[in-house]
Amino acid sequence: MSLTNMIEDMAKDAKAAARELRKLERAQKDAALELMAERLIKKQKNIIEENKKDLSQAKAAGLSAAMIDRLTLDENVIKGMTDGLREVAALADPVGEVTGMWKRPNGLQAGRVRIPLGVIGFIYESRPNVTVDAAALCLKSGNAVILKGGSEAINSNVILADLLAGALKDTGLPPKAIQVIPVTDREAVNILIGLEDDLDIIIPRGGEGLIRFVTSHSKVPVLKHYKGVCHIYVDKFADLEMAKEVCFNAKVQRPGVCNAMETMLVHEDIARDFLPSMSKLFRQAGVEIRGCPKTLELIPEAKPAVEEDWPAEFLDLILAVKVVPDMQEALDHIEKFSSNHTEAIITNDYHCSQRFLAEVDSSVVLINASTRFSDGNQLGLGAEIGINTSKLHAFGPMGLEELTTTKFIVYGQGQIRS
Amino acid sequence: MSLTNMIEDMAKDAKAAARELRKLERAQKDAALELMAERLIKKQKNIIEENKKDLSQAKAAGLSAAMIDRLTLDENVIKGMTDGLREVAALADPVGEVTGMWKRPNGLQAGRVRIPLGVIGFIYESRPNVTVDAAALCLKSGNAVILKGGSEAINSNVILADLLAGALKDTGLPPKAIQVIPVTDREAVNILIGLEDDLDIIIPRGGEGLIRFVTSHSKVPVLKHYKGVCHIYVDKFADLEMAKEVCFNAKVQRPGVCNAMETMLVHEDIARDFLPSMSKLFRQAGVEIRGCPKTLELIPEAKPAVEEDWPAEFLDLILAVKVVPDMQEALDHIEKFSSNHTEAIITNDYHCSQRFLAEVDSSVVLINASTRFSDGNQLGLGAEIGINTSKLHAFGPMGLEELTTTKFIVYGQGQIRS
Repeated sequence: MSLTNMIEDMAKDAKAAARELRKLERAQKDAALELMAERLIKKQKNIIEENKKDLSQAKAAGLSAAMIDRLTLDENVIKGMTDGLREVAALADPVGEVTGMWKRPNGLQAGRVRIPLGVIGFIYESRPNVTVDAAALCLKSGNAVILKGGSEAINSNVILADLLAGALKDTGLPPKAIQVIPVTDREAVNILIGLEDDLDIIIPRGGEGLIRFVTSHSKVPVLKHYKGVCHIYVDKFADLEMAKEVCFNAKVQRPGVCNAMETMLVHEDIARDFLPSMSKLFRQAGVEIRGCPKTLELIPEAKPAVEEDWPAEFLDLILAVKVVPDMQEALDHIEKFSSNHTEAIITNDYHCSQRFLAEVDSSVVLINASTRFSDGNQLGLGAEIGINTSKLHAFGPMGLEELTTTKFIVYGQGQIRS
Repeated sequence: MSLTNMIEDMAKDAKAAARELRKLERAQKDAALELMAERLIKKQKNIIEENKKDLSQAKAAGLSAAMIDRLTLDENVIKGMTDGLREVAALADPVGEVTGMWKRPNGLQAGRVRIPLGVIGFIYESRPNVTVDAAALCLKSGNAVILKGGSEAINSNVILADLLAGALKDTGLPPKAIQVIPVTDREAVNILIGLEDDLDIIIPRGGEGLIRFVTSHSKVPVLKHYKGVCHIYVDKFADLEMAKEVCFNAKVQRPGVCNAMETMLVHEDIARDFLPSMSKLFRQAGVEIRGCPKTLELIPEAKPAVEEDWPAEFLDLILAVKVVPDMQEALDHIEKFSSNHTEAIITNDYHCSQRFLAEVDSSVVLINASTRFSDGNQLGLGAEIGINTSKLHAFGPMGLEELTTTKFIVYGQGQIRS
């Protein structure tokens, strides 16, 4: 069978499974998630064995230590996956909620009810625990999922998917609701994103190159974010101690993630009081500062920023710093360079805080808090399947509810249209 | 200037205008809509003059009488457009609504606020009044719009857009919020749908060919529906008089639209009581019936249905009819052939009605009412920009609210992440 036929068949099976999933009650889905957690523990030796095949190939291929670390499944990581499954089971089921209902002048009662999206294509790189996380969120929200993981994790992903599908089967649910594409060909991505009749949505997670490729070529709608170039604007009316703590946290606590601060904008009236002591803290943490000319006057040891630094997602202990004459210039800078992901203001001024909230066109806008809170768990969505920085469907962190949509339901008594 | 440069500049201007639109209060938008209505009346002679240029070209090109009718702007059509503008002004402004707000354990107050999508690309065929309708809905929801109408309406569209942009300018709003691409080149569509950095969404309206082309090639997310293959299932427990009225209405009242019934499914237990008298009504209205073998036994004058009739959108006085042995087969038929647009059941049975609502995966599902109610105005959305039969963002008829999204807003007191 050709790769195309295989993936087309998987999509057809997923669509048939999705029809069954629409009808499930919460208890059935939670029972399957619980059995999955039990199976992962019971079969952890087999999982670790399959994972070792991936690891030895990765070492032979000369993958970096960081990559190998992300690929490794041990008892702790497997325990983490089972905790994740049980956390998803504990979340409310979004499906079936009537989000509104109203009466029309002709007596029709019209409303909207939350339903699953249908079939989700999930394309990701590296970490095999994403296989379990994504499958759990898709199942709980009533969706079938086709997973295409990184080629370096193929053996791990295949055994994990087998265990999950087995648990589905043994709780009376359609096993084709969770499928991993069991080959490493890059061509599989191309085929998957062309199946617009059977897939409802594609979620790519990984490097910007993968995501741009998927977005450019997919016939299926895509939810994605390219990068997070997050700004904090330290206003003239900021509490400077708070500003230091929040900016330090946003840059240093976990610099390699998309909600870390990449550019700090500082009002010139407080720059002299703020920047030297802030830069001292950053220097102690090993942060390299790349500043505008005014920044360099106040932090002589900083490097001069070049044009490419302003739109950059460093994902590292590097920070671009710009002194601005007023809030308008901060807003203009954000409008020009932000990735519409997350921005924050530090201020005690009422007007400035409200203006920042209203005018910044990003998926998460914070007052006096670290950009690191831009995350489904932290914002209270319960779990996160990803972040979307396009405006469509769900802007920002996406949890279970964002894996659903609504349909209209109408109760009539024989109404006809005149 | 090349066509590409021109359209890229329009998109940049639209994006700059969108930044201004985000900040507008409702009263400013309503004032502009009112002035637009006044200007259309004041300048109706000029509009009709420009429209005549389109009409004479259309006649020379041998367009059908129906096409020419849709293209024609007279005083009545212009009055209709001004009524539409005032109706949109009377609708509530969706922007700024806080759709939810909650407190996190660390004291962060997180919520969601409704915001415009940004820049909308609207691609349509024929009718120039769509130019005004779409522009009004986009403005009211705070979005900038770039309109690409049909080449046969170019003169009409250009003067209408000029008048609308003039009214924006004279009420202090950015005139680039409403722009028509002033050329007829088909290549303009190709360029527009590639501008993923400046456009947030593309809405194509027209024939299936246009929509499939846009969906396949767009780098910008697309909201669209290909076609409406709407079913009514007349259940064993239907009130047959009601079934006749509703099915007649759904097929005959306006057969050329996407929410007209295209296939009628009839439970075999009531087929003998229902089909002969129903078909008599249809025959009197000139409806051609294409039936399954069991239908032909009861309606000998019907044509036999062929395989292509089941997925067909006739948009005409033609109806496919199938007799089914039970509700499961009706659901299976709908699952296989429906376009996920609109389906209805006629029944007095509680269980059957609830099962149909739950299991049919279409954007509008009705009990005991005509499929013709699947429409933004009829469902109470106030106005309709189109219908989306993909599950993403908005499933079904789209009104003002569906031209918005939400962003997260977070009020903190210096919280950092540990």
